[in-house]
Amino acid sequence: TGHLPLNLKFLFEGEEEILSPDMPAFIQANRARLACDLVVSADGWQWSETESDLRVGLRGVCSLEIDVTGPLRDLHAGSHGGAVANPIHALTAMLASLRDAEGRIQVPGFLDRVRPLTAAERASLASIPFDEEAYRTGLGVPALAGEPGFSPRERIGTRPTIEVNGIWGGYAGPGVKTIVPASAHAKLTCRLVADQRPDESAAAVVRHLERAAPLGVRATVRILPNAGWPYEASADHPGYRAARDVLVGLYGREPYYTRSGGSIPIVSLFHQELGVPTVIFGFGLPDENFHAPDEFFRLASFRRGQTAYVRLLLRLGDRESWKTA
Amino acid sequence: TGHLPLNLKFLFEGEEEILSPDMPAFIQANRARLACDLVVSADGWQWSETESDLRVGLRGVCSLEIDVTGPLRDLHAGSHGGAVANPIHALTAMLASLRDAEGRIQVPGFLDRVRPLTAAERASLASIPFDEEAYRTGLGVPALAGEPGFSPRERIGTRPTIEVNGIWGGYAGPGVKTIVPASAHAKLTCRLVADQRPDESAAAVVRHLERAAPLGVRATVRILPNAGWPYEASADHPGYRAARDVLVGLYGREPYYTRSGGSIPIVSLFHQELGVPTVIFGFGLPDENFHAPDEFFRLASFRRGQTAYVRLLLRLGDRESWKTA
Repeated sequence: TGHLPLNLKFLFEGEEEILSPDMPAFIQANRARLACDLVVSADGWQWSETESDLRVGLRGVCSLEIDVTGPLRDLHAGSHGGAVANPIHALTAMLASLRDAEGRIQVPGFLDRVRPLTAAERASLASIPFDEEAYRTGLGVPALAGEPGFSPRERIGTRPTIEVNGIWGGYAGPGVKTIVPASAHAKLTCRLVADQRPDESAAAVVRHLERAAPLGVRATVRILPNAGWPYEASADHPGYRAARDVLVGLYGREPYYTRSGGSIPIVSLFHQELGVPTVIFGFGLPDENFHAPDEFFRLASFRRGQTAYVRLLLRLGDRESWKTA
Repeated sequence: TGHLPLNLKFLFEGEEEILSPDMPAFIQANRARLACDLVVSADGWQWSETESDLRVGLRGVCSLEIDVTGPLRDLHAGSHGGAVANPIHALTAMLASLRDAEGRIQVPGFLDRVRPLTAAERASLASIPFDEEAYRTGLGVPALAGEPGFSPRERIGTRPTIEVNGIWGGYAGPGVKTIVPASAHAKLTCRLVADQRPDESAAAVVRHLERAAPLGVRATVRILPNAGWPYEASADHPGYRAARDVLVGLYGREPYYTRSGGSIPIVSLFHQELGVPTVIFGFGLPDENFHAPDEFFRLASFRRGQTAYVRLLLRLGDRESWKTA
């Protein structure tokens, strides 16, 4: 048509994969320039090549690092072993105490703000097709696992986690080195759900871990700046209704209303700082190995995405679409 | 005097620090050539520059490595976290289960053969001077630790350990990487005391760890060839009596009869294969940072050692010294 039916502002975020540590300050400093009615983010996917997906929930995240130190240097495990605390033993005891044997999180206060799933929400999630056996074999695990009382989809989309992303300490080379190591370390990220708060959740984990540190070591738990709030969207918002109509037009059927286990910290940030929701409108497909070797994107998805975005802009430019139902 | 008063055979062992994995086969193949009345090993120390030490006990050792694998590759911790077992969580739970909260080993069968200390043995160990506070500050630990009911010296010399020497898995670089790692690993060595057996002790740990592996991961526990039996010497043996007399002559006082927490696998090997004890006759000092950066040895100890070995050979060459008391 030769012109856009609305005003667009572009914000390019290059830190999303490290949880946007610099974005809060940037948005606060540029609130007026960024003012808008709706954010649209391409960081989403299609359910399949014939089914679409509107994400109505995102998990939040907080990040921690643990340092456990014992003796000044690695010790001879014969000469000293048994009389000094081994920092690896201390760290494994601290980490093991985060969960009970069945996988329930044991950190006091951590789960307090978790909003219980309603029967309707459980039914809506259960209505989304999911082949557990195909999921299991695709990951190559002998069995799925997780918190008792919840389905795999509920565990990913609606329950928080405390995940150890890395652990190291002592000798990791070939053969044997009989030491009591001087230190041991771990990196953790927690995924959070509404209404958990990143700072509060991280502080609860710190308190629990520091209390679990055994005698004979020094344990330091640091909260890292990589954090984001959980997010729940209202599918009734005019932006979501517009996206839904475009998707129905393209796929010939209703989208699935899903809750992602992932985190996009800017989404809750835009909501808090600019007062507007974000429609996540993307065309990735689940087999594309994101965050992994051999990641790819289909050419057909570029073409579909172009059509979809043109239709979405036209629709959002129509004042009628902004009237509440 | 121009000649030796006895016959000497030299055996040079270059694998002691990796627990002599090739020595059993070598000794078995050369039993006749190695036949002797006594072995003397220089792998020992003085108590201090004015006090000597005769080691009457050595701990044995066995070695294991654990591999825990989960998904085929590192997974996005948002997209999958909560529905798959994290191999680091599995490994920390397995390792934490080796001990109770107070530090007592919980592996069924592991402690069964441990010879209880007699009141006389405890009294003998307690009579050896030991400054706990100096030991603690020298190591730089906030507190000593270990199995309840035993002194630090008893823990090191007379109680077994299961020590994690190294642990690794997932991401250990700077910043945050939100993955569920594909695998996690640990190296373990156990120190053993009389009458534990390395093969049996290692098998008990394997059984316990495999049983402790949670659903959703594959756990493999391998026994490594680096092993040695515990050893207890009889201070009444003519070889020990000769060493004692030489030390009394040099230092002007009785040596301490100590039990080392370390392991010298060849000592029990010589005993089993050649039927002879080993006198550990050495002149290291405890502050010399063995197995650590800046290891050193005093020139004065070389000179003292030369004198001591000349006297020991003269004494052992005297047929009278071999008559039982």
